[in-house]
Amino acid sequence: MKGTLDLGRVSGIKVQIHWTFIFLIAWVVFLEVSRGSDMPTVMLSIVFVLVIFGCVVLHELGHALTAKRFGISTRKITLLPIGGVASLERMPEKPKQELLVAVAGPVVNIVIAILLYMVFPIHRFLNLEPEALQESLSAITPQNFVFYLFAANVMLVVFNAIPAFPMDGGRILRAILSMTIDRVQATRIAAALGQLMAVVFFFFGLFYNPLLILIGIFVYFGAQGENVMVQHLALLRGHKVNEAMMTNITVLHPDQSIREVVNIVLSGTEIHFVVSEDQEVLGVLYQSDFIDAMKGKNTDAPVKNFMTTDFEKVGLNEDLADFYRKVRANRKNFFPVLENNHLMGAIDFNNINEYMLIRSSLDY
Amino acid sequence: MKGTLDLGRVSGIKVQIHWTFIFLIAWVVFLEVSRGSDMPTVMLSIVFVLVIFGCVVLHELGHALTAKRFGISTRKITLLPIGGVASLERMPEKPKQELLVAVAGPVVNIVIAILLYMVFPIHRFLNLEPEALQESLSAITPQNFVFYLFAANVMLVVFNAIPAFPMDGGRILRAILSMTIDRVQATRIAAALGQLMAVVFFFFGLFYNPLLILIGIFVYFGAQGENVMVQHLALLRGHKVNEAMMTNITVLHPDQSIREVVNIVLSGTEIHFVVSEDQEVLGVLYQSDFIDAMKGKNTDAPVKNFMTTDFEKVGLNEDLADFYRKVRANRKNFFPVLENNHLMGAIDFNNINEYMLIRSSLDY
Repeated sequence: MKGTLDLGRVSGIKVQIHWTFIFLIAWVVFLEVSRGSDMPTVMLSIVFVLVIFGCVVLHELGHALTAKRFGISTRKITLLPIGGVASLERMPEKPKQELLVAVAGPVVNIVIAILLYMVFPIHRFLNLEPEALQESLSAITPQNFVFYLFAANVMLVVFNAIPAFPMDGGRILRAILSMTIDRVQATRIAAALGQLMAVVFFFFGLFYNPLLILIGIFVYFGAQGENVMVQHLALLRGHKVNEAMMTNITVLHPDQSIREVVNIVLSGTEIHFVVSEDQEVLGVLYQSDFIDAMKGKNTDAPVKNFMTTDFEKVGLNEDLADFYRKVRANRKNFFPVLENNHLMGAIDFNNINEYMLIRSSLDY
Repeated sequence: MKGTLDLGRVSGIKVQIHWTFIFLIAWVVFLEVSRGSDMPTVMLSIVFVLVIFGCVVLHELGHALTAKRFGISTRKITLLPIGGVASLERMPEKPKQELLVAVAGPVVNIVIAILLYMVFPIHRFLNLEPEALQESLSAITPQNFVFYLFAANVMLVVFNAIPAFPMDGGRILRAILSMTIDRVQATRIAAALGQLMAVVFFFFGLFYNPLLILIGIFVYFGAQGENVMVQHLALLRGHKVNEAMMTNITVLHPDQSIREVVNIVLSGTEIHFVVSEDQEVLGVLYQSDFIDAMKGKNTDAPVKNFMTTDFEKVGLNEDLADFYRKVRANRKNFFPVLENNHLMGAIDFNNINEYMLIRSSLDY
């Protein structure tokens, strides 16, 4: 994601903060100032938000480190104004593992809440009469800071328990459902419930808290995206790259000029090319490569000067589902297909989509 | 747009209401109920919202009927919870005409406000002391209904005067800028200002009115979209279809089977096809056509049973900018290119995008 600030690494996982986070801080400052808080209170509120997001990082690390135990690595943890996102390489498909990974996040907040309760005199607040409690919590102070933190962690647990896939509660639901029914069907149900909850969030957001509007939008499209992915992986599983790959492709010679490539591009539907000489694949000329060449006025230069040589290859018999995951995570989504170093064809994202569209129409 | 309810036609322009409009009504009801309003007040609020949106329709008709005077027709007017949108076939490119079209909307609300002022005793409210005014306007009543309506029309004028392209004020700004500078440059400036204002709307929405969040999102992407379109049209103007069209395409015979088409699709990058026999173009087989055929288990049926015969054609020398407008408005964006009834090639949206990418890289 663009516009992020790296905070460092924990167990090899990059922790990033998204630039829009500044809006959250600005919002908090504005709310405090508009209710007439003094400078120390404003500062305390900012510190509070930062500490809460510290807890969110720990929550996400709960997911990530549990996933690691099942051999699944996490690329990064990103903090957005509406919460954290751990980018796991993939979700475990065994229901029990997925359940553990999903539960591990909220468990971290439960542990934090219990620790705070044991170390600090939080029971004093909980023993107060409702009115006295409300009174003593009307503004954040150094005295009630820890209680606020305790309450926020409890809220994080409660909020994440809502079964709005792809939020934790929704993942837990999907995992539990997949113990008795097909995972694809379980995902469909969890995603539908998630989208329904998203509409509820959106609507509540209009009345109570605008951040809920954003969370609603996030959950709605998140549920849709993950549902589509699971349906797709189910369609592709057991099929091989050679069933979907393109064989009718233009293979470039390294000495062909960029101008010739542009003519090929305009005259047809291909945009990425394999570059090969004497049966050997030397590189890939991505669309971005020839566009770069043209920006540098190198229209007459040979293809070999601009091709990408550290491209990824795919094997003829690689599983399409595994390959689909790889493609989704890769910006350059065009791959030569090789067998014993011989070029057999190429495969790209559109190609797989086409294959899925055709396959799903047959199951109709 | 899907999920709309047709309200009828005015001067041949379809007036539609988007289904999300129900949220606006629900929101108004909720706000009234939560502040303890009685049933008649709730009903009056709903009537008020509907009357305001009547004024919005008149506002949009102001744009549409002014555009009609310059020979530009309007496909429809859609009412969204955040306002109305008139889908003009295109914006006039002459700054003076664009200015008149953009101004015509707010002028309608000014006229409504003046008429209300002249017919009803609105000056009575305006002469009140600030506190008395606030008091008498705390809730909507049959007595202050017309004043509310007057105020809402004034607000519509003020809000639309904000220079947030593509809102009216932004269009007015673009039109005025284009009187002295290049229209492409003027659009770039107006769009940048629009996106800045959108961020401000979004931010204010977090504190004051969640509808502003939605308007902010709408303006942000609207500004981006219109800016891209104007830059593209400028790139394409003066160029002809034959410069960008594909000539290296697979032409199907009407008796070829759907199965053969699927093999062609999977083996290469083409997804739509021209169907031709004896030099005569008989139809187009769109991706959706062969997918439909497969869903109906007609894999062995000939292409001619599923091809689209009322397809649109393009001339070899048609202006690319005009064609681009047509393509953007058309869901089926693949067109055979003909000259004297002879097939010369085909052109689609990706193809034009590729052409623009290549052209803009040369201008880099």
